[in-house]
Amino acid sequence: MAKAAGITAKKSKQFSKWYTQLVLRSELADYAPVKGCMIFREYSYAIWEKIQKYFDERIKETGHKNAYFPLFIPERFLKKEAKHFKGFVPECAWVTIGGESELKERLAVRPTSETVIYTMFKKWIRSWRDLPLKLNQWCNIVRWETKATKLFLRTREFLWQEGHTAHATFEEADKEVMDILNIYRDLMENLLAIPVLVGKKSELEKFAGASYIAALEALMPDGKALQMGTSHNLGQNFSKAFKIQFVGEDEKKHYVWTTSWGITTRLIGAIVMVHGDDKGLVLPPEIAPYQVVIVPIFYKEVERDVILNKAREVSKRLNQNGITTIIDDRTEYTPGWKFNQWELKGVPIRIEIGPRDIERKQVVAARRDTFERAEVKEEQLVSTISEMLTAVQNNLFNRAKKFLDDNITPVKSYSEFKKTLRKKRGFIKASWCSSKECEEKVKEETGATISLIPSEKEKPFSDCFYCGSKAKEIALFAKSY
Amino acid sequence: MAKAAGITAKKSKQFSKWYTQLVLRSELADYAPVKGCMIFREYSYAIWEKIQKYFDERIKETGHKNAYFPLFIPERFLKKEAKHFKGFVPECAWVTIGGESELKERLAVRPTSETVIYTMFKKWIRSWRDLPLKLNQWCNIVRWETKATKLFLRTREFLWQEGHTAHATFEEADKEVMDILNIYRDLMENLLAIPVLVGKKSELEKFAGASYIAALEALMPDGKALQMGTSHNLGQNFSKAFKIQFVGEDEKKHYVWTTSWGITTRLIGAIVMVHGDDKGLVLPPEIAPYQVVIVPIFYKEVERDVILNKAREVSKRLNQNGITTIIDDRTEYTPGWKFNQWELKGVPIRIEIGPRDIERKQVVAARRDTFERAEVKEEQLVSTISEMLTAVQNNLFNRAKKFLDDNITPVKSYSEFKKTLRKKRGFIKASWCSSKECEEKVKEETGATISLIPSEKEKPFSDCFYCGSKAKEIALFAKSY
Repeated sequence: MAKAAGITAKKSKQFSKWYTQLVLRSELADYAPVKGCMIFREYSYAIWEKIQKYFDERIKETGHKNAYFPLFIPERFLKKEAKHFKGFVPECAWVTIGGESELKERLAVRPTSETVIYTMFKKWIRSWRDLPLKLNQWCNIVRWETKATKLFLRTREFLWQEGHTAHATFEEADKEVMDILNIYRDLMENLLAIPVLVGKKSELEKFAGASYIAALEALMPDGKALQMGTSHNLGQNFSKAFKIQFVGEDEKKHYVWTTSWGITTRLIGAIVMVHGDDKGLVLPPEIAPYQVVIVPIFYKEVERDVILNKAREVSKRLNQNGITTIIDDRTEYTPGWKFNQWELKGVPIRIEIGPRDIERKQVVAARRDTFERAEVKEEQLVSTISEMLTAVQNNLFNRAKKFLDDNITPVKSYSEFKKTLRKKRGFIKASWCSSKECEEKVKEETGATISLIPSEKEKPFSDCFYCGSKAKEIALFAKSY
Repeated sequence: MAKAAGITAKKSKQFSKWYTQLVLRSELADYAPVKGCMIFREYSYAIWEKIQKYFDERIKETGHKNAYFPLFIPERFLKKEAKHFKGFVPECAWVTIGGESELKERLAVRPTSETVIYTMFKKWIRSWRDLPLKLNQWCNIVRWETKATKLFLRTREFLWQEGHTAHATFEEADKEVMDILNIYRDLMENLLAIPVLVGKKSELEKFAGASYIAALEALMPDGKALQMGTSHNLGQNFSKAFKIQFVGEDEKKHYVWTTSWGITTRLIGAIVMVHGDDKGLVLPPEIAPYQVVIVPIFYKEVERDVILNKAREVSKRLNQNGITTIIDDRTEYTPGWKFNQWELKGVPIRIEIGPRDIERKQVVAARRDTFERAEVKEEQLVSTISEMLTAVQNNLFNRAKKFLDDNITPVKSYSEFKKTLRKKRGFIKASWCSSKECEEKVKEETGATISLIPSEKEKPFSDCFYCGSKAKEIALFAKSY
């Protein structure tokens, strides 16, 4: 429990400072003794467990299975698909000593597991009977970031899931990529209450090993885009590099088609940024470790038992209806201190029970998102609290959706583009000639990149905003985390 | 799916070879490309998930929370509680290069997390209000083994949970250690169907940082003991080394009392060894990824639909009653091939449905443990299969319990001791003078160590079996994994 240390930075004015204060003081996370690393404290880990549970159930329903592959990857493996891994090698942590002796070949601490998983796929896949092979793993990942640490968003170790699948045809792999993308979108929009834009990465932004990358992007309150998840169609690039072949029903050998996809603990950072306010976290009920905090309020010792019993009864009734609660019955803190504390922790609904409420057979319920308070008759307790939770969830999503919609700005010229980037940020929607040259120039000159080529196809509404030649498609540009 | 490769080694004759064949061919695990590491394939990972779910629910009910601490531990941390960690340092994997530069201080890849967790405890714990602090983490662990790799039992990376708690009093810490021990025992006996002996480690066998270590030991079919889990009362040893103090209700400063406890993926190896037979795995129903496999049998194409529909109906009815099933409806394999395959994978019950069964409104059910087959009328399907599953679970436990009981041999003299160790193995129960000297000599001369000082106190039944002086307690000796 934080010792009543509140948030002093304002979200609207010192966004980055506000974010760090909030993460630390709400006790989501802490810095680790090792530079660049972090600790996922119980409060953020409980959120991660909810994300895991949702996603895990969805992928198991569709025939995926979890497995666990080793942490260490020999250097030579990372050289097999050199195009792909040249980006990873400068960011690896290397084990060079094992026990008391120098290793002959240094080992990378898993920056991603394609190489070791594909090595095994080659061994395990023999015929069409072994396909599709759809595996996932939940694990830790290490990338030796040199930029400043940002809790959840940029740390040397983080947690993720990585799915890796092999299929007999391109079409099946393609469907897999899109199925996963849809699960990701459901997770982000329905659980995290964060609206996302969906599309494909441009050639410049995708790594060379992929046929295409589908991605989900969200907009943070400071106007920067955050990549929330990606799903890769890897074509036959990896199966050719790793020689993963199967004998088809036609009795001929074919290379498999592979996909990979991942989401990370950065999603927790997105929740903090998108929904938090100057008083602390605001957690969407679907992802909150506790959906309701119950604060008993009594002034005299004689009231204590009655009120505590009522609190337990209320808690039990809510629990029986699938609503998670915590009773804050600590005697060493005042109700006012507790209100602040649980606002800092972002619990969606606070229930207060005082002597007057006992008399009136009611409780008082306060929403974290709007601070509205309402008296709730005991007989309507479960239905009203359920409705309030739904209302909080929807309000958070709608608020974020409005912000996103208001911050997709169409531009027709480069001067408009630069002005928008300077004054408003957000996503900038522009007609583009699809040439790498224009994209590179824009990146060089402004720092903005193409977040997505949107999946929902729209016709270009001008010539290329940069070079003025004929536009081929619409692209969404932004500055990114 | 293994391509019909069965087990050729005999459990009774080539135990170690049999074990490795079984683990590989049942597709529980595979060797990793990095020496000494392994892959937890989906079939063993599903078992691990069941272990996790059971234990996780039990510890959460009792107020524990999960968190995640960093993988990397600075070398100087491991020197803080030197007595404890001198055992770990020679077994660490060391990261010496991060990104493109040499690190100033090398980092150990987590051999255990006491040091980093206690560093944070020192920061987080201020007053009695912060206690007890009861955290757990599920993670990967690295120890640079130099002895030959044995899948699940001795690998350079494995998975585990490590619980770490801090309390205001010794009594509370003591209760915690015992509460966890009881959960472990329930897990091992009720889920894994492996009977365990419970007790404390001798001074020689416990590491120096602990006040005492409670442990659970099981007996493997080759007569060697396997340590299944440990729960440590660490007293104030670590809180003093890491200066973890709290202000008590008495407004004075006190050192906290800490505990730690863990179980690892070696439990999966124990399941294989204890229950497996010459045809393959035999999985206790409580831990089996699939409890029932349904094999449709048809000779003519016209029978196919009717039988497949029946298989699906049977599966659905079982699922609705909490029994997990898999239908093996592959057309490319014969029923006989499938029977062998699912016996290899140890599925507790096989249901066969053929044309005659449809006629008679029945199915045929076969037990994996005894190979008994029975006709089951459709109307009794759920109750009979449930009973059979319970019977399999109980039989596996009872069989293992009988083996354990039959292999605890009391001895009164050192010559009896050595003879038993040579001819019978198992646990050897002896009256002991409690001196380290005798214990060390026995270890040196025979390789046997004290597995446990049993919790259930019995009086010595002779003088010390080794030195002949007055015995103080009973000890259980064994050769160990």
